[in-house]
Amino acid sequence: MAYQGKKLINDPDEVVTEFIEGLVETYPGLQYLDGFPQIKVVLRADVSIDTYNKVAVISGGGSGHEPAQTGFVGEGMLTAAISGDVFTSPPATSILAAIRAVTGPKGCLLIVTNYTGDRLNFGLAAEQAKSEGYKVETVIVGDDCALPPPRGIAGRRGLAGTILVHKVAGAAAEAGLSLADVAAEAKHASEMVGTMGVALSVCTLPGQVTSDRLGPGLMELGLGIHGEPGAAVVDLQPVDIVVSHVLRQILSPETQYVPIRRGSRVVLMINGLGGTPMMELMIATRKAVPELQLEHGLAVERVYTGSFMTSLDMAGFSISIMRADEAILQRLDAPTKAPYWPVGVEGNRPPAKIPVPLPPSCSTRNDEILSQPHKLTEQGCILEAAIEAAAKEIINLKDQLNEWDSKVGDGDCGTTMYRGAVAVLEDVKKRYPMNDAAETVNEIGTSIRRVMGGTSGILYDIFCKAAYASLKRSSIITAKQWSDALEASIAAVSKYGGADAGYRTMLDALIPASAVLKERLDAGDDPLTAFHLSSEAALIGAESTKHMQAQAGRSTYVAVDLLALVPDPGAMAVTAWYKAAFLAVKSKLQPSES
Amino acid sequence: MAYQGKKLINDPDEVVTEFIEGLVETYPGLQYLDGFPQIKVVLRADVSIDTYNKVAVISGGGSGHEPAQTGFVGEGMLTAAISGDVFTSPPATSILAAIRAVTGPKGCLLIVTNYTGDRLNFGLAAEQAKSEGYKVETVIVGDDCALPPPRGIAGRRGLAGTILVHKVAGAAAEAGLSLADVAAEAKHASEMVGTMGVALSVCTLPGQVTSDRLGPGLMELGLGIHGEPGAAVVDLQPVDIVVSHVLRQILSPETQYVPIRRGSRVVLMINGLGGTPMMELMIATRKAVPELQLEHGLAVERVYTGSFMTSLDMAGFSISIMRADEAILQRLDAPTKAPYWPVGVEGNRPPAKIPVPLPPSCSTRNDEILSQPHKLTEQGCILEAAIEAAAKEIINLKDQLNEWDSKVGDGDCGTTMYRGAVAVLEDVKKRYPMNDAAETVNEIGTSIRRVMGGTSGILYDIFCKAAYASLKRSSIITAKQWSDALEASIAAVSKYGGADAGYRTMLDALIPASAVLKERLDAGDDPLTAFHLSSEAALIGAESTKHMQAQAGRSTYVAVDLLALVPDPGAMAVTAWYKAAFLAVKSKLQPSES
Repeated sequence: MAYQGKKLINDPDEVVTEFIEGLVETYPGLQYLDGFPQIKVVLRADVSIDTYNKVAVISGGGSGHEPAQTGFVGEGMLTAAISGDVFTSPPATSILAAIRAVTGPKGCLLIVTNYTGDRLNFGLAAEQAKSEGYKVETVIVGDDCALPPPRGIAGRRGLAGTILVHKVAGAAAEAGLSLADVAAEAKHASEMVGTMGVALSVCTLPGQVTSDRLGPGLMELGLGIHGEPGAAVVDLQPVDIVVSHVLRQILSPETQYVPIRRGSRVVLMINGLGGTPMMELMIATRKAVPELQLEHGLAVERVYTGSFMTSLDMAGFSISIMRADEAILQRLDAPTKAPYWPVGVEGNRPPAKIPVPLPPSCSTRNDEILSQPHKLTEQGCILEAAIEAAAKEIINLKDQLNEWDSKVGDGDCGTTMYRGAVAVLEDVKKRYPMNDAAETVNEIGTSIRRVMGGTSGILYDIFCKAAYASLKRSSIITAKQWSDALEASIAAVSKYGGADAGYRTMLDALIPASAVLKERLDAGDDPLTAFHLSSEAALIGAESTKHMQAQAGRSTYVAVDLLALVPDPGAMAVTAWYKAAFLAVKSKLQPSES
Repeated sequence: MAYQGKKLINDPDEVVTEFIEGLVETYPGLQYLDGFPQIKVVLRADVSIDTYNKVAVISGGGSGHEPAQTGFVGEGMLTAAISGDVFTSPPATSILAAIRAVTGPKGCLLIVTNYTGDRLNFGLAAEQAKSEGYKVETVIVGDDCALPPPRGIAGRRGLAGTILVHKVAGAAAEAGLSLADVAAEAKHASEMVGTMGVALSVCTLPGQVTSDRLGPGLMELGLGIHGEPGAAVVDLQPVDIVVSHVLRQILSPETQYVPIRRGSRVVLMINGLGGTPMMELMIATRKAVPELQLEHGLAVERVYTGSFMTSLDMAGFSISIMRADEAILQRLDAPTKAPYWPVGVEGNRPPAKIPVPLPPSCSTRNDEILSQPHKLTEQGCILEAAIEAAAKEIINLKDQLNEWDSKVGDGDCGTTMYRGAVAVLEDVKKRYPMNDAAETVNEIGTSIRRVMGGTSGILYDIFCKAAYASLKRSSIITAKQWSDALEASIAAVSKYGGADAGYRTMLDALIPASAVLKERLDAGDDPLTAFHLSSEAALIGAESTKHMQAQAGRSTYVAVDLLALVPDPGAMAVTAWYKAAFLAVKSKLQPSES
């Protein structure tokens, strides 16, 4: 079904002039001639016709191929670019205006894509300019490799390879060469490059309906950049197969379109057609480079991946291969201020991948080290009791936690916490270096995250990691160290989890618990009393969550905002294991009272 | 209707690793850690952990936002970037690997987009790294301005404004600042920027079906970059209205998301979401800049237009505005080798448009000059007779030319040529400076192109312009000069038109005519004999086109290749006017024989 194409534009008749205005707002190095709507010429803002003593390099053509050609205007590349309307050659008068605006005594080179309209309009402007006394040379680029020769009058179409010709010519001009020499380099470059494209969709012209020529599951090979049909419509293939096919076609020994032989040095351009994400372009590059090296025996000297010469919003890409000797490479690498020439593509190629670094040796651990010591210290015994009591309490609470969670969440809080508790119980005897409280806490985090997954698994691991870092600072662990560790854990959970008091999370229990613990210890209470009061504070905090609004908006923008009327299961879970651990410690320290 | 999304990929599960391989093929300044598929870390190839003495700036997140974040790795910006699977936060182990790979004694800053998964995984990695002895700071960016505060735990989402934070932090690190100072600058920058987006389509995940959530004629305001629904679905509007709305929303005095007041200096980022052509982004820029200046009273210091933080193939854009004092501008302008940071955006802003240059004074003409002289020379009389005879002959031939053309073309050759001939007859007395043969020929071209249009109008103008330039070289015009002019005209028509002998064009008549004329004049024949033989050669050439294959492929790739069996109307037209002109000249010079 054809339907009106959706575009973020105003009047379809003004897309090109409005584009140029936006372009010039973005790049202060560009200007345009005040001749809208007929004359649409972008030129270097730093070129003054009175003093310009280099060959001007001028190109242009129909619009809809952005950034080509306007985006390649800048020192070291194009001196001016003339835009026509979308997919329409610019009129000769506008080309002539561009020539007059930037051509000095050294003359100008016109680089023209091989379309009848462009050839004629640039040709007419060139002849007119010559009769006005300008030195003008013209190089016509036809790099298409999709169809077998000969092509009669039309010849081969000008495609993305034109951009490479611009760069060579622009660099040659910038180096101060004469018009004849610049033209000769451009012509040579144009004969070294071949291009072929593949498309998944047809482009939609501004204000027009979207064609459904290419249905689901189909792609076109050898397309043009004006929405013209490709050479063949075939079933969609994995991109590796598409790339291999296109490379073979460009390098075909039958057509001999490009003089590239085994052992040649080449540059590669993977050019997006406007609607193709960079991810897909890079995946094509990943295939093309080794394929050129290994299958075709070529040295790939440079790779240009990006959207350089597009076809409005068409999905697909073209591949260009240019034979590049040292002279061409030098031109391609020469600096330019053209905003859309890719940067960072030259230079030495270090190994693409390097080994994943090992953890610092101080924290290297293995299962030999990670095992419960043969003999537990008193502290180790107490810690073990606390861990086991806490884990068992969570196991007991499984169904209750699920029930609360089913009222305001996805109902799996109990099940998730249960998995963590079971893992802790399993690992407690096997892995935890129980006499080292810091390392043990660290291992608890690892056990939990291994099995719990999701947000809560990571949050508990963060909780443990922060406690670990805090506990590690002291060689002797007293109630004060545990209090500091709890504080550090809460800070980390709040920081990375994004919650605070009142958000219906475990923090609603933890924050009052920590505050009371710290306050009582500072006040000189004995540790068991302080922990007791702290666990009471946790419970009060957890139960208060019953009256808070539920917020489902943790990772999405769906705000629930219902009054929960059930306590937050995460806060209740914390309260439960915290109290169970406290009671276990207490029974160890005061066995008489248990 | 939902249908399988079309993408140029291989296995949907390998798009991210394959993307990274292609990225590194393209940019030799980038490397990755050899830890696929779990560890997907891109890092600067020029950083050696043993010698790196600056703060490492690290970011990352789910994939599908390319070039973010991997494309911003490079000196002066990110030191490393960690990729998760598509729209999935990277696991903490991979973040930890990145930290270990690039963090030296000055520590590292983690810049994290505000999504729960990213916060937690980066948080866990940060805590782990700290426990290993690394200095780590974290800045969380939430620049979304689409929805009213407060957002509970989720907070404001991290959008394209994050890229600006990267640049500020990267430049600060490159300047040698301490971790605390780099973190402070990044935090400050994150508080200065607000972003809001608009989408025309929903993105399609690799291997998934394409959603039809957004039907024809609709757009979404305040979208996220993971395909989550926007804040509102509204009818598609002209982009100027969309831009105004989004700017007002970002700068809303109610939400006060960004501390931007009338008179503030700001930078603007127009960020494409993956499937939006550059043309549309620039049209948005064109509206946004003056709107910020005139409606909101802001000084727009820099404009960044491009696709920086995308959402796969989503069509749409986001706008970010950052308050930028001199210190921030300095960081944004600082050089970087990150391949996707835009170049050429800073510098003085000259006037955006400059006047269209006037034609060189030597060729300035006006209607006073362009008028037939009061008294014609003998040469002038002969030229006038020839022109009138040629034009009348074309008028007579109109139907015959159309008939031939209807067999192989669009059947309008006679009508088109007729228009040109009528215009010439009208202008011959009014405008042509008949005593100056060169200028008269030039004016004939102008008359013809004014009314003929299309390919043939331009080709005839090129024909005349080339003859003009040739004739102008001599002060006295003899048969030799006319012969040279004809040769120059043919060369120009062939060059720009792309045709040669045998292509069924006017050249099939002109080339033999010119060859015979030149040959006979060189052989010493009298001019009338030479022209007579030349016109006979034209006729033989034109009639020979009857047996040539027709090629409709002048501007398209549709090859017709049928044996024409009618003469080419263009060649016949040339033959007719050429012979008529010759006979008119002959009757003037040899009135006795007429």
